[in-house]
Amino acid sequence: MSVTAAKGFTAAGIAAGIKENGNPDLALVVNEGPRRAAAGVFTSNRVKAAPVLWSEQVLKGGQVSAVVLNSGGANACTGPKGFQDTHATAEKAAEVLGRGAGEIAVCSTGLIGVLLPMDKLLPGVGTAAAQLSEHGGEKAALAIKTTDTVHKTAVVTRDGWTVGGMAKGAGMLAPGLATMLVVLTTDADVDSAGLDEVLRAATRTTFDRVDSDGCMSTNDTVLLLASGAAGVTPDRAAFAEAVRAVCDDLGQQLIRDAEGASKDIRVEVINAATEDDAVEVGRSIARNNLLKCAVHGEDPNWGRVLSAIGTTRAAFEPDALNVAINGVWVCKNGGVGEDREKVDMRYREVHIVADLAAGSETATIWTNDLTADYVHENSAYSS
Amino acid sequence: MSVTAAKGFTAAGIAAGIKENGNPDLALVVNEGPRRAAAGVFTSNRVKAAPVLWSEQVLKGGQVSAVVLNSGGANACTGPKGFQDTHATAEKAAEVLGRGAGEIAVCSTGLIGVLLPMDKLLPGVGTAAAQLSEHGGEKAALAIKTTDTVHKTAVVTRDGWTVGGMAKGAGMLAPGLATMLVVLTTDADVDSAGLDEVLRAATRTTFDRVDSDGCMSTNDTVLLLASGAAGVTPDRAAFAEAVRAVCDDLGQQLIRDAEGASKDIRVEVINAATEDDAVEVGRSIARNNLLKCAVHGEDPNWGRVLSAIGTTRAAFEPDALNVAINGVWVCKNGGVGEDREKVDMRYREVHIVADLAAGSETATIWTNDLTADYVHENSAYSS
Repeated sequence: MSVTAAKGFTAAGIAAGIKENGNPDLALVVNEGPRRAAAGVFTSNRVKAAPVLWSEQVLKGGQVSAVVLNSGGANACTGPKGFQDTHATAEKAAEVLGRGAGEIAVCSTGLIGVLLPMDKLLPGVGTAAAQLSEHGGEKAALAIKTTDTVHKTAVVTRDGWTVGGMAKGAGMLAPGLATMLVVLTTDADVDSAGLDEVLRAATRTTFDRVDSDGCMSTNDTVLLLASGAAGVTPDRAAFAEAVRAVCDDLGQQLIRDAEGASKDIRVEVINAATEDDAVEVGRSIARNNLLKCAVHGEDPNWGRVLSAIGTTRAAFEPDALNVAINGVWVCKNGGVGEDREKVDMRYREVHIVADLAAGSETATIWTNDLTADYVHENSAYSS
Repeated sequence: MSVTAAKGFTAAGIAAGIKENGNPDLALVVNEGPRRAAAGVFTSNRVKAAPVLWSEQVLKGGQVSAVVLNSGGANACTGPKGFQDTHATAEKAAEVLGRGAGEIAVCSTGLIGVLLPMDKLLPGVGTAAAQLSEHGGEKAALAIKTTDTVHKTAVVTRDGWTVGGMAKGAGMLAPGLATMLVVLTTDADVDSAGLDEVLRAATRTTFDRVDSDGCMSTNDTVLLLASGAAGVTPDRAAFAEAVRAVCDDLGQQLIRDAEGASKDIRVEVINAATEDDAVEVGRSIARNNLLKCAVHGEDPNWGRVLSAIGTTRAAFEPDALNVAINGVWVCKNGGVGEDREKVDMRYREVHIVADLAAGSETATIWTNDLTADYVHENSAYSS
């Protein structure tokens, strides 16, 4: 159901010929109203793709009529011509949809540093518009895939209103080349300020804590559009919970489909002095290549967890640290704990708990193992 | 020649039985005087191995009579017992050498979280002491290898004095499990304050900029011992240059022998506003797994360089960035530059230049590509 699960939205996904292999590569999501409220969260990378620069401006107005998304090219590091291409894409969508270009968000994903084939993309916008449907959500989700092996959608329905969405990407808000794009829709009646607050809170503890390979994209975009078509203004807490649930679900799907990964690693930091400390430690563990290799080899090498913790500024005493891997406290008080032979790492999900013994705050970061498949996939991408 | 190239030093390297495979695993370096001045630089990891905690104390006195080094176990995260073991090692060396234990530095390398077999190590110290020789430098260098495929030594001789040394490790002052250990010796007559100043300056632009896999060790140690046996007090600048040259040489040897690597990548950041900016950008590029995979695949994927630059706080404008790979300016003004097909990446050394166009400072960071061999080597290390 994806982005068309909520009432007041139509979508389409087509093959415009941007990808040389003929796979679907262009998606259109249209807010049919009555509301057109929207919020967005974008990559914090300072090298931003043209569509990010464009869409950031669009979102400042708090209204989005439609989103054009393409795979097959990131339109990043493409200079003034790249920005003109994004602008032309929005203008084309505005023209065929009868909306203002200033309310058309644009998202692109694929290889950096290559101009998009506008002779294919612009006609594709027209073709997609002609195929817009209340059942088009799945097709839209399929059209934004790059190295994704499956398309990702999630829907939560509450008392008379719905939040749904689609995602693509092989990593985090700082993913790999794959670039994370997410469009969420709701038929609840929420203004853009409310959407912005809820979306930022949701991404902070979901997409922002999905760190597959530590590489931050130039194109990451998460949009939340509200049509108001359900005629319901939900309780703010209930709405926030629903948006977070959809973000969490999609984030988990990204991790499970990360490039070349054979393990999904849940790094849970507990008893931190502050939440920031917990996040910093979690990220340091999640980005440690040696640990990620060890997990791949099903080796409960807790020394690599400790050495990763030791690189942070978080509050802790080295001889008070405890580490559990899949429920076995292999490190106690900074030294050898339970027998590491007890650790069973045969399954895809691996759970690492780092106890800082310095407070009561916690955070969970999701990552993947480092595999030869990851190397292969990413050493041959653009060649 | 290694640590015995300079006059006033003896060394030995033996197989004490710490490694189960019977390879050499214990080295001893003794300063025969007349001076015993020394300086040390240690890992900045807050989780420090017992020998690091011990040797930091020893170095505070500015005098080192001897260094005991073992491979086959890092003695990190081993609690009070681990520290007692290091202390006992120093006491044993003091006993057999007739020196004070407070002047015996200890270095260990190998797996974290495992106690050393002291029943083998302590007798080994005695055996090594019996084999001390002015020609023992090579054997000492061989005995500190872990995953190193070759032993690493370097010597510089100037006007009547010499600086030599040995190193082991597969990475940086923040290497992998391999842990970088370096012992430098000189027969020049320099006091400990002078050694400290020169050593810190040298490591800052050599070992500190060798970043093979971004993982910081619990055991990294670089020691510089001066015997004064040449009877020469060198010009400070000449001495600093010689120490830096030996550090640079050994650092290059570490990169060339990094675990699983097939490429050595020189990341040169130019026209930065500050040296700190240049180092931050260089490290960000050097630690980008996607770029390291691309280099492995001989793919001049400059978009990954820009996305890595974009994650830093350095001063730059995205549309002023330029990137060259092996001499070809594939990115100009933040966009497409020269034809990437011109880039020849067939050889082991790859040279990436990132021009920030924001000043006149520069820094060079060395790293390696990310390979399936790296994954294999590090997923099976402790199992």
